[in-house]
Amino acid sequence: MAEMTQPTAAVLVIGDEILNGRTADRNIHWLAGFFYDRGIRLAEARVIGDDEAVIIESVKVLSARYDMVFTTGGIGPTHDDITTASVAKAFSVNVCRNAEAERRLLAHYAGTGIDYNQARQKMADIPEGAELIDNPVSAAPGFRLGNVFVLAGVPSILQAMALNLTLPSGVQNHRLTVQTDMGEGTLAAGLAVIEADHDGVSVGSYPWFKPGVYGTAVVVSGLDAAAVHAAAQAVLGLLDSLGGTGFLDDKTTGGNT
Amino acid sequence: MAEMTQPTAAVLVIGDEILNGRTADRNIHWLAGFFYDRGIRLAEARVIGDDEAVIIESVKVLSARYDMVFTTGGIGPTHDDITTASVAKAFSVNVCRNAEAERRLLAHYAGTGIDYNQARQKMADIPEGAELIDNPVSAAPGFRLGNVFVLAGVPSILQAMALNLTLPSGVQNHRLTVQTDMGEGTLAAGLAVIEADHDGVSVGSYPWFKPGVYGTAVVVSGLDAAAVHAAAQAVLGLLDSLGGTGFLDDKTTGGNT
Repeated sequence: MAEMTQPTAAVLVIGDEILNGRTADRNIHWLAGFFYDRGIRLAEARVIGDDEAVIIESVKVLSARYDMVFTTGGIGPTHDDITTASVAKAFSVNVCRNAEAERRLLAHYAGTGIDYNQARQKMADIPEGAELIDNPVSAAPGFRLGNVFVLAGVPSILQAMALNLTLPSGVQNHRLTVQTDMGEGTLAAGLAVIEADHDGVSVGSYPWFKPGVYGTAVVVSGLDAAAVHAAAQAVLGLLDSLGGTGFLDDKTTGGNT
Repeated sequence: MAEMTQPTAAVLVIGDEILNGRTADRNIHWLAGFFYDRGIRLAEARVIGDDEAVIIESVKVLSARYDMVFTTGGIGPTHDDITTASVAKAFSVNVCRNAEAERRLLAHYAGTGIDYNQARQKMADIPEGAELIDNPVSAAPGFRLGNVFVLAGVPSILQAMALNLTLPSGVQNHRLTVQTDMGEGTLAAGLAVIEADHDGVSVGSYPWFKPGVYGTAVVVSGLDAAAVHAAAQAVLGLLDSLGGTGFLDDKTTGGNT
């Protein structure tokens, strides 16, 4: 079949609270599944602190290296929300009060008794040339500047923002999982041969250990459904030839096994 | 008080399964808490795929930039376990069969009926000059090479390895959380003043939203316990002056609020 390549993406999680252990990031895993489902390849994720110089450098490096960059966190009203200003600096553009963002915030706060004060007005400050990203939860928009998509850090808001985006067409992934009670060391030589024999198919081996029992999840993936299917059958054949048991489990996603 | 600085660390998570959404990483959050408790500053975390060139580049960059680097994943027996060889290449050293590692693996497999085959022997291949890191779960050791600590990816093994390490003395963190039902936009101006007024104290603001209710966790942190305590009292005073309610909650860690 014709060669197919997927658009690439990077995630940049911005927030001291992740690095100091206060908060467990949930956005990388959610975005990983989001990109996978859309045929976009998440190539790298980084977690950095609320530090302007580090944000600017990371945005420059990742936006040059990948087709798209998605940042999470740091677009609220407080002094530690420096993502908008830092991304603007990475692109050498100014941040200005955005009339449409302001209209949305005013409509959101109307009748709530919440004061649209200077801090909240900051959430209407958007880099010049950026396109707003809708926030159906709390109104304050994200934005896209060049190939950088700036999203909120609160998972419910991030997810609502991402689900509203129009992204480039991806190339569909195919993935099959074979579960077995054999140790991965027993399968290793055979799995390497299967990967080498099936062009464009990647074979991953994920061992698990529980008290007294162990096993391996063998994950076969690629962009060609027929090749992935053939490789999974070859894994089942390998298990058979080694006297082990296994079954195809194409529902397995998430978890740590 | 005298200036204190913490040793810095970076985490490098290596594994396609995190980036393609199959597995949710749990090691970054666990290590973040581990470093926090030991007074070490986690400065950055990266997630990359099973790609030799990317691993080499990441190890070089992070080990030059931070005091310590901790990798997770990719030290098993299969073809996709390329962390050991890649880290060795980053330091331009050879990988050799390590007698002590081999002794541990042989002892572990003795009497189990598990074949110590070529794939499993690969787990005794360690970069020259590296120091072994004990693996009390499944024997196959990690290692330290220069300032890079190479740990397993399976969370139970990673944790057992990390808890056995002897690390440089850190500088203890202090952190207090003030919970309030006020929106962070209302607090923003006051929080910026409090941070500016308390040297060496960082003030983070983490809003949360549930149907019909919202609030903010204000997190005050630093290396000087008295300064952190004073800043937390100042936050409570701010809430009082704004007519809001709040309470000191120094048990709050983890979660997303």
